[in-house]
Amino acid sequence: MALWIRFEHEGQVKFGVLSEGTVNVHRGNMFNRPTPTGEHVDMAAVKLLTPAQPSKMICLWNNFNMLASKLDLSIPEEPLYFIKASTSYLPGDAAIRKPQSYDGKVIFEGELGVVIGKQCRRVSEAHAREHVFGYTCVNDVTAVELLNKDSTFTQWTRAKSFDTFGVFGPVIATDLDPERLVVKSHLNGTERQNYPVSDMVFLPDRLVSLISQDVSLMPGDVIACGTNVGVGSMKPGSTIEISIGGIGTLSNTYD
Amino acid sequence: MALWIRFEHEGQVKFGVLSEGTVNVHRGNMFNRPTPTGEHVDMAAVKLLTPAQPSKMICLWNNFNMLASKLDLSIPEEPLYFIKASTSYLPGDAAIRKPQSYDGKVIFEGELGVVIGKQCRRVSEAHAREHVFGYTCVNDVTAVELLNKDSTFTQWTRAKSFDTFGVFGPVIATDLDPERLVVKSHLNGTERQNYPVSDMVFLPDRLVSLISQDVSLMPGDVIACGTNVGVGSMKPGSTIEISIGGIGTLSNTYD
Repeated sequence: MALWIRFEHEGQVKFGVLSEGTVNVHRGNMFNRPTPTGEHVDMAAVKLLTPAQPSKMICLWNNFNMLASKLDLSIPEEPLYFIKASTSYLPGDAAIRKPQSYDGKVIFEGELGVVIGKQCRRVSEAHAREHVFGYTCVNDVTAVELLNKDSTFTQWTRAKSFDTFGVFGPVIATDLDPERLVVKSHLNGTERQNYPVSDMVFLPDRLVSLISQDVSLMPGDVIACGTNVGVGSMKPGSTIEISIGGIGTLSNTYD
Repeated sequence: MALWIRFEHEGQVKFGVLSEGTVNVHRGNMFNRPTPTGEHVDMAAVKLLTPAQPSKMICLWNNFNMLASKLDLSIPEEPLYFIKASTSYLPGDAAIRKPQSYDGKVIFEGELGVVIGKQCRRVSEAHAREHVFGYTCVNDVTAVELLNKDSTFTQWTRAKSFDTFGVFGPVIATDLDPERLVVKSHLNGTERQNYPVSDMVFLPDRLVSLISQDVSLMPGDVIACGTNVGVGSMKPGSTIEISIGGIGTLSNTYD
């Protein structure tokens, strides 16, 4: 297992493998045989960046049995998804900003993110994992009152795409079994979500396979697997943390 | 006025200004003071590429008065939009592919595309046009039977994001007045759409301003302004052309 991280250090963008507070810096392409530079950087000296720069971030709706049951939603026959704008991407340790053009509730949604490592199109479920680089934490921030503001068109894209609303990181962890992971969210230190990935309707390998039937998936693309019970609204001044054992904690403030 | 074009020539990606069948090749950044290289290339020798590589393609729904009236839709209070996956982008003179994972109707939607030239966020309508580089033709191809396949979640993203469904080009035309443009679609040579941009609910400058209240717009981003009456389905073997006077014709086959 390795924890891959991207960051700014002495004015330069770098990436590498994190171990015990030190990054073993690499060069080249994170997803295709990167090589160590020999440089080691103390995490205390870096500014975190998103661990990848996805060409698209695909986000699932209604992908957990517990939440579907609570909201009395039928279990979907196929993955239901939307895309978050790339201008919304935000790393950990940065501030999620309240939109100036929206006055309603803003909620956190803690999720598992699957990071693609190899381009794939129409991959089978059995071969899906060969195309996955690793896993990350996602906070799919949502201006929830926009969703149904217009009764004729549910505004998924807009509600989810404000600048700073596409939060993921802090690292990409490789060689994990995603089906054994547990996602937790803490708002101002209080646990609000704590759910197993195994409650997913479409598990990660199946998501990669099914979504790749529709669209090509590219190295660095993120599939945010949807959230489960316990989401809630954030007040300005809040701290929100999404944690997944084996990956780490994605920590942000909300201004 | 200039017609900017991107293309492949002798194995290299190049761009420049098209005039009378010849491209005056430029180098640098198309959106920020590109400089002529001195090379001139005959259009007959090039393979067309999409004229920009948008970080996002934002597409409007229900943005024309005539179509809203025909479908008995209320006029929206705000722009209603979704995002097409970047892996769907396709230039002119290339084949739109029927998805293997979908058997229903595939329709063409001829649209005006606004191409952003300067990054903007919360720009006023009066200053919007300073951030626009130019205009292009868009074919917002749609697997229309997916839209309402699931009664709980309208699948805008999926229906519009199959590989090859994000068609735009052939050029970006600068220094046009978009409100005077007319969009035409021809299916196998027969005119199917012919509508004025002036029928838009939210005209291009207003779209740029309103959308930039929500998300940062980046150089190369495309806003597809929505379609009007006359869309229809394509049968394999069809040729579909989207034409806008002053810009040109975006021509594709459908396999």
